[in-house]
Amino acid sequence: MDADNYEVIYQVRQNRLAEAMSEAGLRGMAFNAGPSLTYLTGLHFHLSERPVVGLFTIDKPPIIILPELEAGKLNHLSYSIQGFAYGENPDTWWKVFQNALNSADLRRSQIGIEPRWMRVLELDFLNNTGLEIDFLPGDACMTGIRIRKDEAEISAMQKAVHIAQDALQSALPAIKPGITEKELAAEITVQLLRHGSNSQLPFTPIVASGPNSANPHAFPGDRELKNGDLVILDWGANVDGYFSDLTRTFTLGEPDNEMKIIARIVNQANSAAREAAGPGVTAQEVDQAARRVIEEAGYGQYFIHRTGHGLGLETHEAPYIRDGNLLSLEPGMSFTIEPGIYITGRGGVRIEDDVLITDQGLRSFSDLSRELINLEPQS
Amino acid sequence: MDADNYEVIYQVRQNRLAEAMSEAGLRGMAFNAGPSLTYLTGLHFHLSERPVVGLFTIDKPPIIILPELEAGKLNHLSYSIQGFAYGENPDTWWKVFQNALNSADLRRSQIGIEPRWMRVLELDFLNNTGLEIDFLPGDACMTGIRIRKDEAEISAMQKAVHIAQDALQSALPAIKPGITEKELAAEITVQLLRHGSNSQLPFTPIVASGPNSANPHAFPGDRELKNGDLVILDWGANVDGYFSDLTRTFTLGEPDNEMKIIARIVNQANSAAREAAGPGVTAQEVDQAARRVIEEAGYGQYFIHRTGHGLGLETHEAPYIRDGNLLSLEPGMSFTIEPGIYITGRGGVRIEDDVLITDQGLRSFSDLSRELINLEPQS
Repeated sequence: MDADNYEVIYQVRQNRLAEAMSEAGLRGMAFNAGPSLTYLTGLHFHLSERPVVGLFTIDKPPIIILPELEAGKLNHLSYSIQGFAYGENPDTWWKVFQNALNSADLRRSQIGIEPRWMRVLELDFLNNTGLEIDFLPGDACMTGIRIRKDEAEISAMQKAVHIAQDALQSALPAIKPGITEKELAAEITVQLLRHGSNSQLPFTPIVASGPNSANPHAFPGDRELKNGDLVILDWGANVDGYFSDLTRTFTLGEPDNEMKIIARIVNQANSAAREAAGPGVTAQEVDQAARRVIEEAGYGQYFIHRTGHGLGLETHEAPYIRDGNLLSLEPGMSFTIEPGIYITGRGGVRIEDDVLITDQGLRSFSDLSRELINLEPQS
Repeated sequence: MDADNYEVIYQVRQNRLAEAMSEAGLRGMAFNAGPSLTYLTGLHFHLSERPVVGLFTIDKPPIIILPELEAGKLNHLSYSIQGFAYGENPDTWWKVFQNALNSADLRRSQIGIEPRWMRVLELDFLNNTGLEIDFLPGDACMTGIRIRKDEAEISAMQKAVHIAQDALQSALPAIKPGITEKELAAEITVQLLRHGSNSQLPFTPIVASGPNSANPHAFPGDRELKNGDLVILDWGANVDGYFSDLTRTFTLGEPDNEMKIIARIVNQANSAAREAAGPGVTAQEVDQAARRVIEEAGYGQYFIHRTGHGLGLETHEAPYIRDGNLLSLEPGMSFTIEPGIYITGRGGVRIEDDVLITDQGLRSFSDLSRELINLEPQS
């Protein structure tokens, strides 16, 4: 995207949202601090005890309710937005919300919200204006726009994957017996930053070793890596707010035979899903392609999660690659493919790639080896 | 805290919550993934599209609703908790919520929630059980318990401050003309991890240089530091989930005279607040002590935020050190003292310490110099 496009991109996105809201029968949408508000405005806010709400309607310029100490962020924007700023005493905030919503002329209208982001904190202020506004789930409006990435977004995601892959290469020498999971997570984080990731990582790297590798969402702990371990690493970088999210599984020394078999099956499942995915294929079909490989090998009960999730400004977003999701995949959609097998008390293997649906089929952003690599120090 | 205490600490906290709920007339409280749930259970969950809700009542063992792929986290706990796990299809989740709440026998009862954490996502599932439960703001119950830190918590916070201070010392050589704000934020992050912070930082370091220093919540950008800049650094570490949060202001070369005056005033305001704070003093009085110094120097309109905020498992928590907060400070309460002066278009100064109320008065966890230090390379 060149500089000119950057000037208008937020206006274009706001216009697209207006069309989507109009089709959905919504008069507007309210967003609290989070990725959709950033996508629409280019503004960044922390999710904190001070509510920030952007209100976008089908027929008026957007408004934003925010703390006075953040109001400086509204200077020098390429589009018009009306700010309603409040001071440090929460007792005064409801009045600012009331003024803001009154100015938008929304009495008895239906306004969409994102249930995954909107907190009771903001919703209570929005509901307390006496305007009898009906706040309804409206995430589909935003999802429909964000789910198809443009060239600049795709370029940022490709960079985020390259940084993650380079960071892993730099961290590999640290993976040896004696290092704790937490220390290795810190080392991967350091390498992500050294290779150019934004400091705001998509998530803290997961390092799950030995029996912990059987827990798909393990937090890194004080366990020291030791010979014979399977080690699952799940990590990602941030470029301009766009995330990567990769997983590879390693061994320290020779693993037992069943773990080698599992690793081969998961690798095959990953390939099968990548081969199945393409424009016009449903998310469910991609999930089934991976799941069938694992089920036919007799490990179906140990593949305890969906095959993947959308990726972009959030680590998890639409499209969700799962059974029951009949969404047809289209060019510009980006998501993970990450089958896994987890045997409690023994260990697990997961192989995760970040991919993009193209006109021609599928492009994998990631190209690290998917083999189970033995990192045992050569003596 | 020794190992024996660790075994019972969660049970003790759950019992305290039961007492607080009982006094508040609540039958129970529901928490989604976040610091209170971790405080009560020792369990860590990501805030994601998969809702996790812990339900604590005054008369029954706690229950937790969570994804099947996280259910392994409930093994080997030192207290009893009943898990209700759901699969990957969101259409099936409401039934699991219904079963869980039915099992707790809560028809027509009043259950507290934390509006700052509870999202519409979880609340809609909780409200959709047909049990006519009334979900009300109940954060005061939890705040009253978490606001007084025990010895183990205080020790973790002191360590988090030491790590942050050591990390800054290691990052100082990188602060020179030509480095961008983002690069410096990454360098500080690297040093925090190298010095032993948990990888999950409390927040991405703020690096606000030149005119950006006038924006208290600036995000690090692509601006290169240059001679004559004021540079505000705001950074913190994580030890066992407990945070530090410090700010110091530096100059690259000789700043203009007014900026030196401002720095002296902010330093005096920081001292005045630390001297005013102690057991039995109100939060408002501490805010006023800092504010009076800045107002009397003629810069009152440029001190656009409260003097500080509580610190612990969250970067911002009770007690809030602001005008209008008549809460009496008590031993064990920890918070920041961070007056600032921000002149739009020119620059700003903020000096932030992390402190603890003790029986005797006030202890500052942080002891870095509060002077405006010139980092200009010596030629």
